[in-house]
Amino acid sequence: MDFRDVVAAKRDRRPVPADDLRAFVLAYARGEVPDYLAAAFLMAAYIHPLDTEETLAYTRAMVDSGVTLSFPAAGRPTIDKHSTGGVADGVTLVFVPLAAALGLAVAKLSGRGLGHTGGTLDKLESIPGFRTDLSGEEIERQVAEVGCVVAAQTKDLVPADGALYALRDATATVSSVPLIAASVMSKKLATLTDLILLDVKSGSGAFMKTAEDAAALANACVDLARAWGRRCRAAVTDMSQPLGNAVGNALDVAEAVEALRGERRGRLTDLAVAFAGAALRSLDGAEDGEVRAATALRDGTALSAFARMVEAQGGDPGVADDPWSVLPRAPVVLPIEAPRGGVLAAVDAEEIGRAAVDLGAGRVRKGDPVDPAVGIVFEPKVGDRVEAGRVGEVHARDEDAARAAAARVLAACTLADESDEPVAAPALLLGWHGTED
Amino acid sequence: MDFRDVVAAKRDRRPVPADDLRAFVLAYARGEVPDYLAAAFLMAAYIHPLDTEETLAYTRAMVDSGVTLSFPAAGRPTIDKHSTGGVADGVTLVFVPLAAALGLAVAKLSGRGLGHTGGTLDKLESIPGFRTDLSGEEIERQVAEVGCVVAAQTKDLVPADGALYALRDATATVSSVPLIAASVMSKKLATLTDLILLDVKSGSGAFMKTAEDAAALANACVDLARAWGRRCRAAVTDMSQPLGNAVGNALDVAEAVEALRGERRGRLTDLAVAFAGAALRSLDGAEDGEVRAATALRDGTALSAFARMVEAQGGDPGVADDPWSVLPRAPVVLPIEAPRGGVLAAVDAEEIGRAAVDLGAGRVRKGDPVDPAVGIVFEPKVGDRVEAGRVGEVHARDEDAARAAAARVLAACTLADESDEPVAAPALLLGWHGTED
Repeated sequence: MDFRDVVAAKRDRRPVPADDLRAFVLAYARGEVPDYLAAAFLMAAYIHPLDTEETLAYTRAMVDSGVTLSFPAAGRPTIDKHSTGGVADGVTLVFVPLAAALGLAVAKLSGRGLGHTGGTLDKLESIPGFRTDLSGEEIERQVAEVGCVVAAQTKDLVPADGALYALRDATATVSSVPLIAASVMSKKLATLTDLILLDVKSGSGAFMKTAEDAAALANACVDLARAWGRRCRAAVTDMSQPLGNAVGNALDVAEAVEALRGERRGRLTDLAVAFAGAALRSLDGAEDGEVRAATALRDGTALSAFARMVEAQGGDPGVADDPWSVLPRAPVVLPIEAPRGGVLAAVDAEEIGRAAVDLGAGRVRKGDPVDPAVGIVFEPKVGDRVEAGRVGEVHARDEDAARAAAARVLAACTLADESDEPVAAPALLLGWHGTED
Repeated sequence: MDFRDVVAAKRDRRPVPADDLRAFVLAYARGEVPDYLAAAFLMAAYIHPLDTEETLAYTRAMVDSGVTLSFPAAGRPTIDKHSTGGVADGVTLVFVPLAAALGLAVAKLSGRGLGHTGGTLDKLESIPGFRTDLSGEEIERQVAEVGCVVAAQTKDLVPADGALYALRDATATVSSVPLIAASVMSKKLATLTDLILLDVKSGSGAFMKTAEDAAALANACVDLARAWGRRCRAAVTDMSQPLGNAVGNALDVAEAVEALRGERRGRLTDLAVAFAGAALRSLDGAEDGEVRAATALRDGTALSAFARMVEAQGGDPGVADDPWSVLPRAPVVLPIEAPRGGVLAAVDAEEIGRAAVDLGAGRVRKGDPVDPAVGIVFEPKVGDRVEAGRVGEVHARDEDAARAAAARVLAACTLADESDEPVAAPALLLGWHGTED
């Protein structure tokens, strides 16, 4: 078979036969298709997006490039949860122990953060001793015993995705809805759980800048789940501003602990509760899931599940009681001071994410180290009345870096005068897509 | 500079700034842009063709990736001549010595044949001893002394083109008019001559299957020449059937010698004469160029220029007197027998070219060896009345290969009954494009 024919078909907008596309992807995963031919395919598939059948065949081949994982969970329903990535998006840190506290089992296998969006593994690894490189047996045992685990996905889980994602990143072919859906879903489909929960972010801090694009991605993902006979719920949620307040690693963990203690209300907590409610509704038909979730945050059961997970993975469970006695602190903490008051009309969330990356909190390139201590805390939300003065703080290695980041945060904000049109807080949850719709 | 931005601009159909495109091509030529990123660019440029400005910047960078050659020709006007490739297209073999006989100087630097179209170097190398790997000094000296040379282009002439062509071939991005025009013209523009003659083939045996596509390519090429201030004439000519009768290497040389002796009239001779006439008209304003060319074929001066060129390049000049005393012969010669008579209505020229490649006359992959002796002779032209019986012959290494090729040639022919609509011979020269239009 001449694989150039597969590329030429996509190039010319002819349907690519499923078997040919499958053979192409599997051969690429085995190293038998050169990067340049795969790159030509990816560009053709970017400009002429894969149709439903092609996306299915492409995803199926990616899944079949590696192993399939399953988690006996001692009778608990199992869940996987994925966010397409945002700024101050600590939902997974809160949701995972919260769901475990509600009697569900969460097996969350994750990749590393890249670019302006943080990564759950990096955040948890800011807890000294916390291990994410667990073996398959360790993951299974922890799901059964603790009810939740967050671990690095193993190399044999969808190896084709790692290779293709790196190639897309290197060839300006990342932001294609079917290719993103295939990448996200291949890993979820290779992990056998009873429910897949997706958080598709939409807005200035997300990869999908508009609600329409985010909805298209959500639909492409649930279509794939449906074709596999897998239960999947995908929410499109707002990322027009940082979701929580903390943009970093230790800072995110500290914020998640506050939320797990029930001490912090707000969009981050609201979203974790909404996902827990959706999970219970989807798996049990329960209509009171959100109420039970809020209770688990108030009564300490969610926090205690978090402590058990941290301890099981080698971290100091004291982080759940007194985060800053355990987490690393940056040497410089500089307040961010707004020069004048007004109403916060807009925030460039991606710019705040990039400012945190430049402090060292994230990575520009795969494999870069991440500084656990540094980051940004930014408190106001769109629609809030802001007074002149302190609106957050920068945690940095030195004064110069801190000042530069503070200036970028302020420049990323648009303040309106109170005499202008009132600014409404943007809706948090823009819609659900999925199996039950 | 992040070269992904160049790729993303082309991908999104935004104009690529000339300086950025230039930097990209030159960096690729230096090995600083990986093949996969160049492949992504080529696919984007295939689907969203380069516009006039982009084609100019891309071609200019290709030219500047290597050296520029010039040929002092002792006062003779210098010509370069190029065919986009066809089947039984021996025009260069006839034209080059014919032009030299008419007082012009021809410096023809050529690449190797690939696929169903033959290569002039391969044909001439079927003459024992004939060398095409001449040094720059040898080429210069021969142009000055003999008036013509056909040699392999040196590695330092447009190195970017060799690398990009190989990548296009490997990534299904060959047949894009601007990319083809840039590839063809970069080598012509890097070789300083007074006139560039292009033969853009159109039809079943050509890369451009329609006259419209061929005209678009001719126009793209003359536009580039005009932007450089170079004189260029491009003819669109018929390749809906093999041009001459011989499809091979030694077989082509023998046919060219017959034409140079004035012993063979027909489409091959007609086209060589037409190009010689166009060259004299373009360079001297001469209106009697075709008459003078026909005379040079009759009076032996063209044949004698051919013999001098062969001798200068190490070949046996006896090939001009008695080709088959010098050229290699295949062990098996099998007549091609038409099972019934009729009027030849159509020929799939590419299929005949491919049958010759499979006999060993051409190469499927770059670097494959070529068998100088084998090939196909097919005599009827479209519109001819064909009798049942011999219509040509196959020259092969063995009987099986010969029979298979003969069957393919017959299957490539469409015969009409004489009671059907009459079949007109297709026009040979479909139009001229270029500087004087």
